[in-house]
Amino acid sequence: MKLEKLIIATGNRGKYNEFVNIIGNFADQIIFAPEIARMIVDETGKTYAENAMLKARAWSEKSGLPCLADDSGLEVEALDGAPGLYSARIIPGNDEDKVSWLISQLEGKTNRNARFAAALALCVPNKFTLICEGECKGVIATSQSGKNGFGYDPVFIPYGFNLTFAELSSDIKNKISHRADAFRKILEFVK
Amino acid sequence: MKLEKLIIATGNRGKYNEFVNIIGNFADQIIFAPEIARMIVDETGKTYAENAMLKARAWSEKSGLPCLADDSGLEVEALDGAPGLYSARIIPGNDEDKVSWLISQLEGKTNRNARFAAALALCVPNKFTLICEGECKGVIATSQSGKNGFGYDPVFIPYGFNLTFAELSSDIKNKISHRADAFRKILEFVK
Repeated sequence: MKLEKLIIATGNRGKYNEFVNIIGNFADQIIFAPEIARMIVDETGKTYAENAMLKARAWSEKSGLPCLADDSGLEVEALDGAPGLYSARIIPGNDEDKVSWLISQLEGKTNRNARFAAALALCVPNKFTLICEGECKGVIATSQSGKNGFGYDPVFIPYGFNLTFAELSSDIKNKISHRADAFRKILEFVK
Repeated sequence: MKLEKLIIATGNRGKYNEFVNIIGNFADQIIFAPEIARMIVDETGKTYAENAMLKARAWSEKSGLPCLADDSGLEVEALDGAPGLYSARIIPGNDEDKVSWLISQLEGKTNRNARFAAALALCVPNKFTLICEGECKGVIATSQSGKNGFGYDPVFIPYGFNLTFAELSSDIKNKISHRADAFRKILEFVK
């Protein structure tokens, strides 16, 4: 299966670029549609999968085109899985504030294990909605490093590396990330 | 793709039998698991698709097996699409009470158009959740007839027939129904 057009359901240019890198030539034309992003989709789901589906279906209905959406979060063992589903909303402020919050929450903790989890939803109008989940396991650094990526990337060191997601090249991050893992499962299925 | 085992996520033996007929040899072993049905899944979604996904994923998580779930409703034009998502809960009581309610709501109405809508969700653990939707268009009879099926079947006459779903043989209903339409889309995709 190859799509002619695909909307990436995000208003965030950084996340859009990441998706373009991950999905390669899955679609002839990949569309960034910030005007649809102004439409607010309530992320009322209790799981990443539900939220991803809500977004993909809403954008698809609005545009009449196939849409790919994600919902993702960082789950920290020593915080019983927090911030998880609320990773983007756990405290007000920007990415910097969230990263600082996380570092302070883990001060003195020896268990630094965490995982990034993602659900991707692909909605093709009048045909199907497909949802696949992925993860990337790692540890939380004691201080932030790096300028790439977004969100908690500056404090997340994936297993097998000694650099944070924000220090790794986007090519490497986009091979090992939770979103890449989920997209591989979508491809296994639709190829 | 062929599954070894598949749970039909319903506690209703009538709906289970209908699904067994619809899905044919899609799985080597089709399982009716009323003990899992005791687990209550809140149907909190705002669409059939969301509710079907919630059920399929919950049953799959509980059993560790692939699960197929549906959510469906009857949408009546003259009632602005009601009872729709609330078809099974619009009034307290059994199927008989719901059918009587519908007949009384449509008394004297000339527009009798309606459609049965269904979303099916197939969840295969650690792989994917796939959601497809289907419909069956028809009219609402002025009185009930027939003993087959369940729900609003005794007053729904599908286009092209002069018998209600409850009068048609299960073989015919299971070729033209909203659930059969949705399952054909699943098959197109997973074959």
